[in-house]
Amino acid sequence: MWSRSWARSWATLQPLLLSVRSGAKFSMPGMMDTVLNLGLNDETVQGLIAQSGNERFVYDSYRRFIMMLSDVAFSNDTNKLSKHDFEHLFRDLKAEKGVTEDLDIDAAGLKELVSRYKEYVRKQSGRDFPQEVHEQLQASIEAVFRSWNNERAIIYRRREHIPDEIGTAVNVQSMVFGNMGEDCGTGVAFTRNASTGAREVFGEYLMNAQGEDVVAGVRTPTPISELAKQNQAIYDHFEDVCNILEKHYKDMMDIEFTIEKGKLFILQCRSGKRTGPAAVKIAVDLVNEGRITKEAAIARVAPEMLNQCLLPVIAPGTKYDTIAKGLPAGPGAATGIAVFDSQRAAEMGKNGGAGQRIILVRSDTSPDDLKGMLASEGVLTERGGMTSHAALVARGFGIPTVAGCSDIHVDDEKRQFSVNGTIIKEGDPISLNGTLGEVINGTVPVVETDRQALMASEFGTYLGWADEFRRLGVRTNADTPADTRLAIELGAEGIGLCRTEHMFFEGDRRPVVQAMILAENDADRQTQLDILLGFQREDFQGIFEALQGKPATIRLIDPPLHEFLPSRESLIEEVATLKALGKSDTEKETMLAKVESMHEINPMLGLRGCRLSIVFPQIVAMQTRAILEGAAAVIKAGGEAHPEIMIPLVGHVNELKAVRDDLEATAKQVVEEQGIAIDYSFGTMIEIPRAALTADQIAPHAEFFSFGTNDLTQTVFGFSRDDSDKFLRVYQDRKILPDDPFASIDREGVGSLMRVCVEKAKQVRPNIKLAHTSAASILPLISLP
Amino acid sequence: MWSRSWARSWATLQPLLLSVRSGAKFSMPGMMDTVLNLGLNDETVQGLIAQSGNERFVYDSYRRFIMMLSDVAFSNDTNKLSKHDFEHLFRDLKAEKGVTEDLDIDAAGLKELVSRYKEYVRKQSGRDFPQEVHEQLQASIEAVFRSWNNERAIIYRRREHIPDEIGTAVNVQSMVFGNMGEDCGTGVAFTRNASTGAREVFGEYLMNAQGEDVVAGVRTPTPISELAKQNQAIYDHFEDVCNILEKHYKDMMDIEFTIEKGKLFILQCRSGKRTGPAAVKIAVDLVNEGRITKEAAIARVAPEMLNQCLLPVIAPGTKYDTIAKGLPAGPGAATGIAVFDSQRAAEMGKNGGAGQRIILVRSDTSPDDLKGMLASEGVLTERGGMTSHAALVARGFGIPTVAGCSDIHVDDEKRQFSVNGTIIKEGDPISLNGTLGEVINGTVPVVETDRQALMASEFGTYLGWADEFRRLGVRTNADTPADTRLAIELGAEGIGLCRTEHMFFEGDRRPVVQAMILAENDADRQTQLDILLGFQREDFQGIFEALQGKPATIRLIDPPLHEFLPSRESLIEEVATLKALGKSDTEKETMLAKVESMHEINPMLGLRGCRLSIVFPQIVAMQTRAILEGAAAVIKAGGEAHPEIMIPLVGHVNELKAVRDDLEATAKQVVEEQGIAIDYSFGTMIEIPRAALTADQIAPHAEFFSFGTNDLTQTVFGFSRDDSDKFLRVYQDRKILPDDPFASIDREGVGSLMRVCVEKAKQVRPNIKLAHTSAASILPLISLP
Repeated sequence: MWSRSWARSWATLQPLLLSVRSGAKFSMPGMMDTVLNLGLNDETVQGLIAQSGNERFVYDSYRRFIMMLSDVAFSNDTNKLSKHDFEHLFRDLKAEKGVTEDLDIDAAGLKELVSRYKEYVRKQSGRDFPQEVHEQLQASIEAVFRSWNNERAIIYRRREHIPDEIGTAVNVQSMVFGNMGEDCGTGVAFTRNASTGAREVFGEYLMNAQGEDVVAGVRTPTPISELAKQNQAIYDHFEDVCNILEKHYKDMMDIEFTIEKGKLFILQCRSGKRTGPAAVKIAVDLVNEGRITKEAAIARVAPEMLNQCLLPVIAPGTKYDTIAKGLPAGPGAATGIAVFDSQRAAEMGKNGGAGQRIILVRSDTSPDDLKGMLASEGVLTERGGMTSHAALVARGFGIPTVAGCSDIHVDDEKRQFSVNGTIIKEGDPISLNGTLGEVINGTVPVVETDRQALMASEFGTYLGWADEFRRLGVRTNADTPADTRLAIELGAEGIGLCRTEHMFFEGDRRPVVQAMILAENDADRQTQLDILLGFQREDFQGIFEALQGKPATIRLIDPPLHEFLPSRESLIEEVATLKALGKSDTEKETMLAKVESMHEINPMLGLRGCRLSIVFPQIVAMQTRAILEGAAAVIKAGGEAHPEIMIPLVGHVNELKAVRDDLEATAKQVVEEQGIAIDYSFGTMIEIPRAALTADQIAPHAEFFSFGTNDLTQTVFGFSRDDSDKFLRVYQDRKILPDDPFASIDREGVGSLMRVCVEKAKQVRPNIKLAHTSAASILPLISLP
Repeated sequence: MWSRSWARSWATLQPLLLSVRSGAKFSMPGMMDTVLNLGLNDETVQGLIAQSGNERFVYDSYRRFIMMLSDVAFSNDTNKLSKHDFEHLFRDLKAEKGVTEDLDIDAAGLKELVSRYKEYVRKQSGRDFPQEVHEQLQASIEAVFRSWNNERAIIYRRREHIPDEIGTAVNVQSMVFGNMGEDCGTGVAFTRNASTGAREVFGEYLMNAQGEDVVAGVRTPTPISELAKQNQAIYDHFEDVCNILEKHYKDMMDIEFTIEKGKLFILQCRSGKRTGPAAVKIAVDLVNEGRITKEAAIARVAPEMLNQCLLPVIAPGTKYDTIAKGLPAGPGAATGIAVFDSQRAAEMGKNGGAGQRIILVRSDTSPDDLKGMLASEGVLTERGGMTSHAALVARGFGIPTVAGCSDIHVDDEKRQFSVNGTIIKEGDPISLNGTLGEVINGTVPVVETDRQALMASEFGTYLGWADEFRRLGVRTNADTPADTRLAIELGAEGIGLCRTEHMFFEGDRRPVVQAMILAENDADRQTQLDILLGFQREDFQGIFEALQGKPATIRLIDPPLHEFLPSRESLIEEVATLKALGKSDTEKETMLAKVESMHEINPMLGLRGCRLSIVFPQIVAMQTRAILEGAAAVIKAGGEAHPEIMIPLVGHVNELKAVRDDLEATAKQVVEEQGIAIDYSFGTMIEIPRAALTADQIAPHAEFFSFGTNDLTQTVFGFSRDDSDKFLRVYQDRKILPDDPFASIDREGVGSLMRVCVEKAKQVRPNIKLAHTSAASILPLISLP
């Protein structure tokens, strides 16, 4: 800290003013804005007037300083001293003077404003605006440090995986002034276009202005390109600086500058924020310009940035009204009318409905909602996390989705939702920005991506480079021939996870599946299975054709059978209502009895996966037959097929052995019937801790392992992904978990168990094929056409 | 196989008959009975008549042989050739001859019977009874081997943990005959009393009889003690043999013998089945007689045998009508009238009701049923496994219980259950043998144990010896002062698991707990918590007093809060009914809304354990305060208290740290308020795989670990103990799992994870206190008074 004598001498003899700002490596929402003109007080104002001979400039600087310091350092819930409040006072003054522009207020007016500001500070905080410059400086520095733990900054760091511990520095600089007259100015610019990545300086500036004027919207800033016309020398100088900084930092930079009396000063520079497409183009261009290596380029673009390139987006530059924020569960933008019921959505929407653009709004979703979801442009749910049913379907089918949006309150009966007093009724237009989790009131223009053009652009080059370095193969998740075709076209090396049960939900199959479940005896069950066999054989044949000889890991039926039946709660309600009215409905009552008999308290840990295959072996026998008959048809037509049949949820080697033995018998029979060789193999999903712990027993019976880290995370943590939202939010707030373990693999727990598994498996089967199945992966690539 | 020439020569020249029986080490229900008199045919019969000069004896032997061989070797679903059928034919013959006793039928009659038997075999099986002796022998031997995989034998082996692989031998012996006249006989005897363990030869015999006559109940056998009066020399000889065999095998033996023309032959001997009390007395006596060491005696008595000594039993010798069998979920016998509703049971039964003896019969039970269960003598459920709610409560409170009795069908509305055509209505007397899982029609006499007399008997000696060798400390599970007192009296070294939530279910506390959960704000919640604080402080004070200075591991609240609220399904039903009738009930609707908002899809993996403590820290703060204030009160009164506070369901070290930090603050505050030192510690339950995998991170923050293998088994296997019955039964049938993992710890999976945990924990805290919490343990010791 300076001595008081320094402060005095400095203040009276040599008016050197300071700016104070965060020295954080990242620009972070919620972090403290810069405090400019620090050092001004009633005394130094006089010195600065004497030195500059520009009284208007000095009072303009002083009123800005009072506003900025009060806002960041003295404003709180009781002392309302925000910029907004000061701007009110300025507006009042302008109204009194009968002018609208700040620049129309003269020195006397600004002096009056300073005195009103000081009075206002005294009134609100009960103390005078500090005149001691060291006190001003200390307050500013503390405000920077305090803002590091500001709620918005914390949320931002969490989303961007920026650790809390790195902290911030504080930059204290001597001032230069953009507000000394018309030969002064200030601006911000990116060294390249932050939206497109084009190699052009991109930004805005204002003459006779200070920092926040450029972004505050009070005056309309001028595009940086105009600067060349206004002052070629300064513009050239600025371009040179941009080049120097890019060369040094090897990246596109975000630069803040001021022109003081015709001289350029650089105030700050940091790595520039950019869109996905810009990130890809800039990375590729920097390689081509010899600035960075291909490896560096690959590491620099986050995977989400690539996804952004593929998704429909809100047309750049659109202003919109965000009324709520939820989880960015399914990226992309969508616009349509709100519909609160899946059945109505299915009737009104696309994919079989009347073709309206629908946003389906639900408290949460279940497999029952699938048809409605597929008919919708986007989905909004009040509950559910990043791996809730809605989110998984959203990403699986490329439906822009905002999930777990607890700001809204959905009222199914009234067909509306409310958010902070706004009511959105069925039929009202709304939009979603699934990439950012935003819920938007009204319609916005949405722009689709041209995939072919994209692959011909830097995006294609970038993916090609990634292929040079990656050590993992990449397959797609796909359950239909259409999805498969698209994924192969986009470079997938096969199917990593084909979920056979998704096929059970499709179209006219559900009643057959239900009849199969409700069958009273094996013969009736087999009749329905024979019908399903036809469907599934056709599915698999189509998938193998689309794969053009690439392999497919096909997971046998996994979910509990009650998922295919109507919901227990609605049946209880319907039957109770009928009973109260003295009516009866045998079909409903029978269904309720069946649903009750199949009800599970913890379905996640219940009769599903290979357990189902052991209790009802006919279902997977049918599936295996369908897979191999489908493969045989393709081979007979001159094609190739390499099915890898995956038996899910194995915990004990005997489970795998039992199911595999049954299915090998079926497979041998099909091969014999078809009279041709089929290259099939059997493997399992590692998603139960016990399987990982006993991998040396399991591996001899599995040609491949695929880690199902979603379920593995559920069991290793003992967290239900359907129920954990409630406490995971608190966990994040209290920093109990560094990340949502369903969004980012827990290396210490889940990862260490995976390591045990791999080591044990390789001891007994060194060449075992290992894979990781992820609900996220490259799924956005595979949105429905 | 013998050559045909041997068979011929043997058959005609030297009639040597054989017996064939299983040589299995264990007598096993369902295994093949002995085949006697093998080698008889129409030809050898003549030789034996010539040799013995006793035609009646020969035809008696032949008819027995036809019956026995046909029963074991030729009877099946279509050829009905069971013993029972042959006995019918014999009964018909006796009726024709006008006699009732077998012995009243002469040689001619038996010859006629042989011819009818042969005719019957021909009619039923379509072929003649085999005359070739080698064919007879081969059929007998195959029948022995086949019976090893008989369903009853498999079930028995599973229950007794006898491996399937050991297989059986076949004993082929030359015959001696107990049916040659009045100087012949046969019998079975134990070298000691199998019911009491008293040192006396104990058994029965019959003169002029063969093997199965003794047990068949056709003739009433004579107690072995009578033999001394009939033939002192033979009796003395038999006693000598008993001594020799006991000395050799060092155990109480089960011996089969025959007397042929005054000469004693020993046919078979094996270790004798015995009751729990007999097992304990025999083990202690064998040590005192110098036959075995104390260690051997300890190893020889299965823990269930000890439990048997403590439980009420059906009075020995009582004959009863078992109408169904379920899981032996809560050992002991109970008798009373069937009641189908917990509310009615609570009103009618003991512990606050009208004092009737009740057997509560439910489809399954939930915490709502607790009061009704406590009012009942015994509990019978249709669904639920050995660790279902009913089973846990049953063992926790010592209520004889048969669970998962899928033979019965409970109809709550009609207040009855049906089983194989029998209907038991509310009010009908039934009984349960919880030790064997038997459901009994009608009333049986039940005998209680005198615990003091028991401890003064061999039982006390035995437990004393066990204390000499055991390496584990043994604590009790107890939630009330009364339970604690009883356990300490019976030798518990403290409390290993005090479940604080059980206290929330008691008496008038439930409404307070509900009000706490339903509270709209923190202040209202605190008001209810303050009331609960009073209750819990008193509970803990009483428990510490009862512990007399011994330590108590107290687990903070564990279950999800919705367990304390009414069931969601009944609320949906009630509200739907009201709505259909045009009525409304705001309280019910509010409760439904709250229950819906708290509903979890997988509550086992939901908001419970330490997660609850992180989201609602006030509850555990109250509990910690109650524990320490209770401890302080005891210390101030001159006593001791050593609370070990256990934070459940930790998966990540930060969970433990967060809760512990909060509670340490509360603890310090209480210690300061009370102004005395309290010896408390904090630890955690290891019941989540991630906790075991990261034990080195967790151990620095836990003074002790207690393995909760019930939940650990659920997560390691991914099995819900509430839902796994359905498939675990199939697993057992298909031998996929060697044991029910909830009844017997899975060493390969759960055990290996426990090993990882212990190793990692000891690396960082070598002296960590380790415990294992079991729902089973010594709980039967602690039945309510």
